[in-house]
Amino acid sequence: MSLENKTIYFTRGVPPVEAFPTQQLQECAATVLEEHSDTVLQYHPSIGYLPLREWLAQRHAAQPQEVMVGNGSLELQGFLAELLTSPGDVVFVEKPSYDRAITAFRKKGLEVVSVPLEGDGYRVDALEALVKEHHPKFFYIIPDFQNPSGITTSQAKREGLIKLAQQYDFWILEDNPYRDLRYWGEEIPSIYSVQQALTQDEGKGKVFFFSSFSKLLSPGMRVGYLIGPQDMLKKVAKIAEDAYITPNMLSQGIVSDYCRRGWLEPGIDRLRNLYRPKLETLIDALETHMPQARWTKPEGGFYLSLYLPPEVDLEHFRDQAHEKGVVLSDGNGFFADNDGDSFLRLPFCALSSEEIREAVKRLGLIMQAANRE
Amino acid sequence: MSLENKTIYFTRGVPPVEAFPTQQLQECAATVLEEHSDTVLQYHPSIGYLPLREWLAQRHAAQPQEVMVGNGSLELQGFLAELLTSPGDVVFVEKPSYDRAITAFRKKGLEVVSVPLEGDGYRVDALEALVKEHHPKFFYIIPDFQNPSGITTSQAKREGLIKLAQQYDFWILEDNPYRDLRYWGEEIPSIYSVQQALTQDEGKGKVFFFSSFSKLLSPGMRVGYLIGPQDMLKKVAKIAEDAYITPNMLSQGIVSDYCRRGWLEPGIDRLRNLYRPKLETLIDALETHMPQARWTKPEGGFYLSLYLPPEVDLEHFRDQAHEKGVVLSDGNGFFADNDGDSFLRLPFCALSSEEIREAVKRLGLIMQAANRE
Repeated sequence: MSLENKTIYFTRGVPPVEAFPTQQLQECAATVLEEHSDTVLQYHPSIGYLPLREWLAQRHAAQPQEVMVGNGSLELQGFLAELLTSPGDVVFVEKPSYDRAITAFRKKGLEVVSVPLEGDGYRVDALEALVKEHHPKFFYIIPDFQNPSGITTSQAKREGLIKLAQQYDFWILEDNPYRDLRYWGEEIPSIYSVQQALTQDEGKGKVFFFSSFSKLLSPGMRVGYLIGPQDMLKKVAKIAEDAYITPNMLSQGIVSDYCRRGWLEPGIDRLRNLYRPKLETLIDALETHMPQARWTKPEGGFYLSLYLPPEVDLEHFRDQAHEKGVVLSDGNGFFADNDGDSFLRLPFCALSSEEIREAVKRLGLIMQAANRE
Repeated sequence: MSLENKTIYFTRGVPPVEAFPTQQLQECAATVLEEHSDTVLQYHPSIGYLPLREWLAQRHAAQPQEVMVGNGSLELQGFLAELLTSPGDVVFVEKPSYDRAITAFRKKGLEVVSVPLEGDGYRVDALEALVKEHHPKFFYIIPDFQNPSGITTSQAKREGLIKLAQQYDFWILEDNPYRDLRYWGEEIPSIYSVQQALTQDEGKGKVFFFSSFSKLLSPGMRVGYLIGPQDMLKKVAKIAEDAYITPNMLSQGIVSDYCRRGWLEPGIDRLRNLYRPKLETLIDALETHMPQARWTKPEGGFYLSLYLPPEVDLEHFRDQAHEKGVVLSDGNGFFADNDGDSFLRLPFCALSSEEIREAVKRLGLIMQAANRE
């Protein structure tokens, strides 16, 4: 089928299959089953596989006791939310934020309040006012190449958030799975690493850091992790044990072997080189075909977000796009208040550059027609 | 160290490491990563890997749409409990029952009422009276080689339970991970298979069947499954998706390949031959060294349970056993009412026959001394 007649799915934040280092994972699976089968095939404490926890601790300048590994970071976020909150409590997310996290928090009976984002992260005045009004238990934030917006929080706002969390006694849940996928620009320290240099009075220990191998290695292996204060992690591990006894040890063993062979960093370089041209193409195509729209300019990650001009009706636009063979997600799920009327998330990693250009061209034609109407 | 000085752990229901078919799993891992990496390394609908669901459906005379695979059966039980109940509802378990299931139900805010067991399963009069009094949402039952007692529910009681569930409108949650590990005696059809032959009026569709590969293959791979009505499974899958997006696909791919190669049945035969002599030794040693005690006579599974004579104090007995190098679990966790004062679970699969004989010999000496006191 020629590209012109192909349906293009601008919908899910999944890696393309060529991102998976299949042969390396085969080698790691063979090795871990050869050398560590007694451990990785057996029941195990729910905090996770020690060699992987040690490796992650070193990578994040933490202690192994401060690292817990589970079946993906979303589930760990659910366990931590269970520990930190009671039904009826208020928690904060960014506006927009990751739809599955919003759902997970609501399922715990929490009231989810969202903090508006601007180009360099949360709006300072809005956050302060909301904190004073709601006294949240935690702020769930994705500071690097945010899902769904693609926005990165500035260093000043990371530091300001730690201070505010200390002052008003709430936790920071930093979800940072895209951090390593920076395609250009200067790296900004994670919120977790910023607080590590502080004293307790200054806000040390108010941050939990989440990340995952889903975007760097494979989502189907379900390995995510949580870094935070040891005494809290013990309690999270008890919640995990009550839910599933033992996390997937075989996956953890394979990931550990992969990391310890030194394959993660070159693997990340390969992914950067795979994804960078896709994002460049997307930005270039938007400049060419949709100059009327506003969009974020991510420096990495999986997502760029597009704000349609106010005169364009989003539902109608999505219907027309569908007719022209471009499937777009409903953006409303990313808005805790369900008011993402002009918002479109464009996940670019799973598409080829040709598909991205073709899809944006079609969207541009629809928008031009809408403007003429 | 000679056996006489060795500490023997009569505590956890784990398989011994020699039970793991490590080399076969290596082959399956290589094959699934060779042939199905696009699927098993990727995000996937939460209901699980279709080839494995198809294989399981065939094994249990169900449809693939009636099979869901997740990260162990305990977690699936939690999801199903979330679907079937609201906080404050009453659910039934056997007395004694699996401690982790009791904990999971309580964490959902459920009131757990326990139905006394006798040699061939639940006490009929007690169950009927409790059902009339409490109107449970479900009865969680482990009919084959029950954990912790080792008791098997008779065919008549399985049939009676289905009728009662129909009459009083509650669900049966059949947890049956040990069923294939029968060492002698006649197989009894699963509750699930008994109800399959019925009409809806007779009680068809009131049963969910849980099982797992933890006892047949490997606990560390975390593959368990649930069979039940398709419309209900869709809802359970949504709960699972909200919790972890995708189950561990690599493990499911490996297990699927293992099953499709025809390796499961010979693997089960090998386990039966590995475990049967251990149970024979345990029964023989109890007859020799502890004739005063009552114990169940399991025909399979992982557990035999021991009831101490009323004059023996359990806590004191466990302390003395510990001094003599036999570590015993607190049996109270298996009793929803915390009244397992004379109960000891003896999991025999992880010990050698020599260790079993030595441990029972030591326990027998303690009991003789207690009787003389």
